[in-house]
Amino acid sequence: MPVSSLTLGQYLFDCLKAEGITDIFGIPGDYNFSLLDTLERYEGIRFINGRNELGAGYAADGYGRLRGLSALITTFGVGEMSACNTVAGASSEYVPLVHIVGAPKSTDQQAHKLMHHTLLNGDFDVFRQMYTHLCAYTAILTPENAEQEIPEAIRIAKQKRKPVYLMVAIDLVTKPIVRRVAPEEKKTVSSQPALDAAVQHIGGLLNGANHAVLLTDMLTLRYGLRDAVQQLALRLNVPAASLLLGKSSFDERHPNYIGVYGGAFGSEQVKHIVESADCVIAVGMVWTDINSGNETAKLDRLRLVDIQPEYVRVGESRYEPVMAADLIAALSAAGWKRNGGLPPVSFPYDAIIGEPDQPMRAASYYPRFQRMLKDKDIVVVETGTFAYGMSQVRLPAGADYVVQQGWQSIGYATPAAFGACVAKPNRRVLLFTGDGSLQLTVQEISTMLDNGCRPILFILNNNGYTIEKYLNVKTANQRYNQIPAWRYTQLAEAFGGTAFTAQARTNRELDEAIAAAEQAQTSRLCIIELIVTDPLDAPDYLIRLRKHLEEQERLKG
Amino acid sequence: MPVSSLTLGQYLFDCLKAEGITDIFGIPGDYNFSLLDTLERYEGIRFINGRNELGAGYAADGYGRLRGLSALITTFGVGEMSACNTVAGASSEYVPLVHIVGAPKSTDQQAHKLMHHTLLNGDFDVFRQMYTHLCAYTAILTPENAEQEIPEAIRIAKQKRKPVYLMVAIDLVTKPIVRRVAPEEKKTVSSQPALDAAVQHIGGLLNGANHAVLLTDMLTLRYGLRDAVQQLALRLNVPAASLLLGKSSFDERHPNYIGVYGGAFGSEQVKHIVESADCVIAVGMVWTDINSGNETAKLDRLRLVDIQPEYVRVGESRYEPVMAADLIAALSAAGWKRNGGLPPVSFPYDAIIGEPDQPMRAASYYPRFQRMLKDKDIVVVETGTFAYGMSQVRLPAGADYVVQQGWQSIGYATPAAFGACVAKPNRRVLLFTGDGSLQLTVQEISTMLDNGCRPILFILNNNGYTIEKYLNVKTANQRYNQIPAWRYTQLAEAFGGTAFTAQARTNRELDEAIAAAEQAQTSRLCIIELIVTDPLDAPDYLIRLRKHLEEQERLKG
Repeated sequence: MPVSSLTLGQYLFDCLKAEGITDIFGIPGDYNFSLLDTLERYEGIRFINGRNELGAGYAADGYGRLRGLSALITTFGVGEMSACNTVAGASSEYVPLVHIVGAPKSTDQQAHKLMHHTLLNGDFDVFRQMYTHLCAYTAILTPENAEQEIPEAIRIAKQKRKPVYLMVAIDLVTKPIVRRVAPEEKKTVSSQPALDAAVQHIGGLLNGANHAVLLTDMLTLRYGLRDAVQQLALRLNVPAASLLLGKSSFDERHPNYIGVYGGAFGSEQVKHIVESADCVIAVGMVWTDINSGNETAKLDRLRLVDIQPEYVRVGESRYEPVMAADLIAALSAAGWKRNGGLPPVSFPYDAIIGEPDQPMRAASYYPRFQRMLKDKDIVVVETGTFAYGMSQVRLPAGADYVVQQGWQSIGYATPAAFGACVAKPNRRVLLFTGDGSLQLTVQEISTMLDNGCRPILFILNNNGYTIEKYLNVKTANQRYNQIPAWRYTQLAEAFGGTAFTAQARTNRELDEAIAAAEQAQTSRLCIIELIVTDPLDAPDYLIRLRKHLEEQERLKG
Repeated sequence: MPVSSLTLGQYLFDCLKAEGITDIFGIPGDYNFSLLDTLERYEGIRFINGRNELGAGYAADGYGRLRGLSALITTFGVGEMSACNTVAGASSEYVPLVHIVGAPKSTDQQAHKLMHHTLLNGDFDVFRQMYTHLCAYTAILTPENAEQEIPEAIRIAKQKRKPVYLMVAIDLVTKPIVRRVAPEEKKTVSSQPALDAAVQHIGGLLNGANHAVLLTDMLTLRYGLRDAVQQLALRLNVPAASLLLGKSSFDERHPNYIGVYGGAFGSEQVKHIVESADCVIAVGMVWTDINSGNETAKLDRLRLVDIQPEYVRVGESRYEPVMAADLIAALSAAGWKRNGGLPPVSFPYDAIIGEPDQPMRAASYYPRFQRMLKDKDIVVVETGTFAYGMSQVRLPAGADYVVQQGWQSIGYATPAAFGACVAKPNRRVLLFTGDGSLQLTVQEISTMLDNGCRPILFILNNNGYTIEKYLNVKTANQRYNQIPAWRYTQLAEAFGGTAFTAQARTNRELDEAIAAAEQAQTSRLCIIELIVTDPLDAPDYLIRLRKHLEEQERLKG
């Protein structure tokens, strides 16, 4: 085999650069020096330090959602073990992320030495083994296998939209790779007979339908099908709703858009349209507890066309391999079109309510958020109260919406917003987070400041884990849902930066803070602390969810 | 089987309380509500909220080191996956920690529903499987098995000094347990013939030895052998040194104590005494890269008595089962005694140096730390520069020293110091951490403030990851080793608390800051920021380590 002058590290970064990656997140450690030294001398990819691995990982996740692929570098043991939550989240939510781990010297591994950052048992494969549970592929890189393993890992990450794991010993990163004949790229393609049969079957359903509806979800986003489904909705002339995990998978200013379907907790109009439909075409749907509104959502399987990335199920029949993009294109071209106009709908937060000097409440601040959003904004929303409330805010055209509604790890959104700033430096990023969640990963505000990012951060100070108070219907006033009362507007200064800061208690103060932040945001990061006096003030969605849980508890008791 | 009125949750807490646990760390989440609701109504154990799972886990680790056992409650998926690093560290460093995970409803698990906080693949066992790699025992609790599994898990945690993992579905916590006949406690005991043979073998070695020496280490601490080894040193009349991972395993004011043995990097006197010894009795030694001073330490296996918790190796002979406590007692009673006085030694930081108005340097501040320490202080030291420098500070009598010198996860020490405050509320806790490390887990300062803790925090502001700059001998001025410049003395205020704060740049300012903090510490938390102008100023230990690495690199090139 010919030896190249290209080192393993350079080749790895070449492969990532070829995928459009221009930034890699991570934390230095003595086992990844050779990776970072190589990267520091490499043209075209920047290394972005986070404050810890959880934050760096979440940032990579946010970046991956907006750019299609991301990478994270950690150090063996201590570093990678701090990133488990973020990689698990990427797995749960179909985010392709290449996790690269710098490991001890290959000879030390072979000698099973008791090295620092190990379990002190001579086992150097234990963490990779753990990651096999979270990753679609794992590999231990060598100069001999790099040209096979790296492209294969990236291919699988992209195909499955899942994280992958690559470990490389510190001494092998600078070794020249052994060149091989590039393997032919395996690609799953549709079976034409299966595709034709599926289209015919769906056509039959549509012919008998008067009230078809389109549902889009998380995998619509992850598999880049947003434009295709919008086209399909127009061609079919059907209303379209998205599910909670897939908010923004259908442009919310598109004429066919009717809102987010959330079973008994979301809009009544949307619920009625979806549940009375005689054919539901769902694209990229993941049927979770959250998406089904705690199983209050009802989709009749016999009237359901369930388009998944590589197969489709029509009623009880499954057709595969059928690529979603092929099927959507075929359906768009089939000429089927529903007669009649689209049902009229209203959106919950279209009207500004609340007197200027009244205290802000959910009912008054969500409409104000909707009003302030601009086309192409990136809206990053924390799990919890905000994820439910913001789900009902109608996004502007071309907006991206980043939320972790499946994995739901509190603390995700702040670092993810940083990742969004890095991924799309020319777009406005807004973060909506709660006090409880912010405290988990607050230090990434420092990373934003350090990188000159200028998002607008809305911090809802409602004095604790309001979402947990809502979800626990068995007890009240739990001490464990209390959190320390921080001075949120002083954080940026403590982190050595400067920021525009404002506190808002009334609707007027919120209006003024937003107006001022929109000015300030051109030159610096903005923090708006929303201080609500009622810790149990919440959006309607959450109030209905709570009522449902109370009712279930009552029936049980 | 009779059903008790005791619920699973109550029984779990009864078992932990019986082990002396009065505080459990953790973070609430909707799958652990029933655990926390039970705990909130339970007498005798407090729930201590952390700011995130990594911090709560580290705090539990610090608590476990000082109290012999600790417990951590997290929520399924998101919570437990954020605690992997901390549990791995507890595994690496022999800290018994019971990790309790609240899981989704048993019926939802059995139906393989796609629940939030899961990988959305219906697999509810995946995280437990990951934890089998880190824990000495894992179990899924039910009312039927609780009385078997919980005592067994605790027994194994204590025997092996390792973390264990218990998962319980939210709905099962409040179910009454099914009573069983309590299983007889399995206990490993010494084999008398093996013990006798070992004592005879060691006696033979000691008879032929003129310069025996005692070494103590991490497992001396973890297995509670500190008093026993001190007694042994007195009886044998031999000098005693500890290893880096076991600092404080031998009282550093004991007349037989000579210092920390660190191969080529530590004290020359200690190196000479240990390496010229004709018999080395090592108790609870873990022979890692760090303990061996990157393999510059030399211990001749044929002259080594390696006393491990459940066996002893004398030269090439291994005797087992031999419990360390039994063997040490037998050796103490055997009547062997070395003739002659103990070798005179000096300690590196006994003399205060540095003019008052000179900038502080490592050479001048370590003696000042040594001088300020008081009997029974708990000294918590971060991995990195401080862990090397503080290893050479002679501790006062009865001091505890908490450091993660095996796993070496930066960010550990701040939450561990909080854990120490909770574990020993009547003792003074001092934290020595660096700016780089602090940034990973800074929010636990808020938890300290929120719980009224009053440690003294020394934060070394040397403008980046100095330890990493030292360890990387291949490149210089790495950008990735830079960190944001925080205003450390403003952190407490941003976190909503008040603290005594001081900045010290000169030796005089340090002396004044220490004196003022010692006053202030009676009423509040203290933060002393040590600002050094030379980012590569470091303790001698680290300078020698660097020289060694440079020499190795030179020889390779």
